[in-house]
Amino acid sequence: MAGSTKDIDALIELMARLPGLGPRSARRAVLHLIRKRALLLTPLAEQMNRVAATARECLNCGNIGTSDVCDICTDDRRATGELCVVEDVADLWAMERSGVFKGRYHVLGGTLSALDGVGPEDLRIPRLADRIAAEEITEVILALNATIDGQTTAHYIADQLGGQVRLTSLAQGVPIGGELDYLDDGTISAAMRARKDL
Amino acid sequence: MAGSTKDIDALIELMARLPGLGPRSARRAVLHLIRKRALLLTPLAEQMNRVAATARECLNCGNIGTSDVCDICTDDRRATGELCVVEDVADLWAMERSGVFKGRYHVLGGTLSALDGVGPEDLRIPRLADRIAAEEITEVILALNATIDGQTTAHYIADQLGGQVRLTSLAQGVPIGGELDYLDDGTISAAMRARKDL
Repeated sequence: MAGSTKDIDALIELMARLPGLGPRSARRAVLHLIRKRALLLTPLAEQMNRVAATARECLNCGNIGTSDVCDICTDDRRATGELCVVEDVADLWAMERSGVFKGRYHVLGGTLSALDGVGPEDLRIPRLADRIAAEEITEVILALNATIDGQTTAHYIADQLGGQVRLTSLAQGVPIGGELDYLDDGTISAAMRARKDL
Repeated sequence: MAGSTKDIDALIELMARLPGLGPRSARRAVLHLIRKRALLLTPLAEQMNRVAATARECLNCGNIGTSDVCDICTDDRRATGELCVVEDVADLWAMERSGVFKGRYHVLGGTLSALDGVGPEDLRIPRLADRIAAEEITEVILALNATIDGQTTAHYIADQLGGQVRLTSLAQGVPIGGELDYLDDGTISAAMRARKDL
C-alpha cells in the first residue's frame, strides 16, 4: 500500500492472518493499535512475547497452559474419576466456562477424518486408554461436536474402550433459549426422538 | 477462565479490545496464535514493537508513517497543486489503493460534531489554510464521508476557503457493481438528480 509504510504494511499483513480478520479489518485494527499505542499496542506486544515464551500443551491432557502439566491435571479436587473427552482446547474452555463439569479433560486435538487422512495415531487416542487405567477413571463423557467427523470419532472411541468404563455423551436437543423456527431439521428430529415425560 | 491460565487470559482480554474482535473471536485468535507460535505469534509481537517504536503522525498532513513528514508529503512528484481532504487515515489509505489520485492529502482527524463537542480547533482545519498558501494548492478535493457530520464539515471548510482555491467534492451516485435493489433511497435520489446525458 503506497499510503502507509513498510513496517505498518507488514503488521497489517500479519494481523490479516488471524482467524476472523480480513485485510480490511486488519487495517482498522492496526490504525486502532497505533492510536492506542501506550494502552494497547505495547501491552499487547509484551503479552504476546510472554505467551510465546511460556505457553505449552499439557503432557497429560493436551490443554494449553504455562506448565508441563496443566492446572486441572494437577488439581487433586478434580480427580473425580470422570474424564471429559473434547476435540479441541477451545471446547475445553467452553466446558469450563459453563462450570458444570468438575472432573478432568482429555483433548483429542481433532477428529478422525478419512478425507483429511487423520487416523487414531494422529490424535491423543492411545493416551486416553493409558489414562483410564492410571487415573482410576470410572466414566468417560464424550463431548465431541455433533458433526459427522465428531460422531465417527465418538463411535471409534466407544469401540476401543467398550466395557472398560461407563461411556456417556452429551444430550442432544433444543438449545436453551432456542426458537424452533430457527433450528435445523436434524436438531428437531433429535429432540423429538429423545423427548421426555413431564 | 479456569481452564486456561493468567497470561493467556490477559492476552485474550487485550485481543478482545481490537475493533472487530469480541471475546469469542479473541479466544479463537489466541489459540491460533499459540499453535502458530514461530510463524505468527513471535513475528507479530516483534512487528508490534517495531511499529510502536516508529509509527507517528505526519506533521504536515496527519497521515501515519514512520517519519516526521510522510512519504507522500516528501515526494515532489505529488506536488500537483491538488489537495485531497479526508476524515481519517483509513480514508487516505482507501484513496491510495484506488490509485486514482496523484496529489497530496490532508487528514482532518474526524468531523465537526456539535453532539460530541468537536469544533474546528479539534481537527486539522486551521493547518489546511496554511498549506494552501505554502504549497501553492490550486484545487481542494473534499473526499469526506457522505454522512451528516461529513457533509457539515465539508460545508464549513467550503465557507472558510471560499474563493481562495477551486473546491470540488467526490461525485455521488450508484457504486460500480451496485444493484439498485440493494441501494438506499438517498443514494438513488442523489444518482437521479446527478443523472448524465449518454
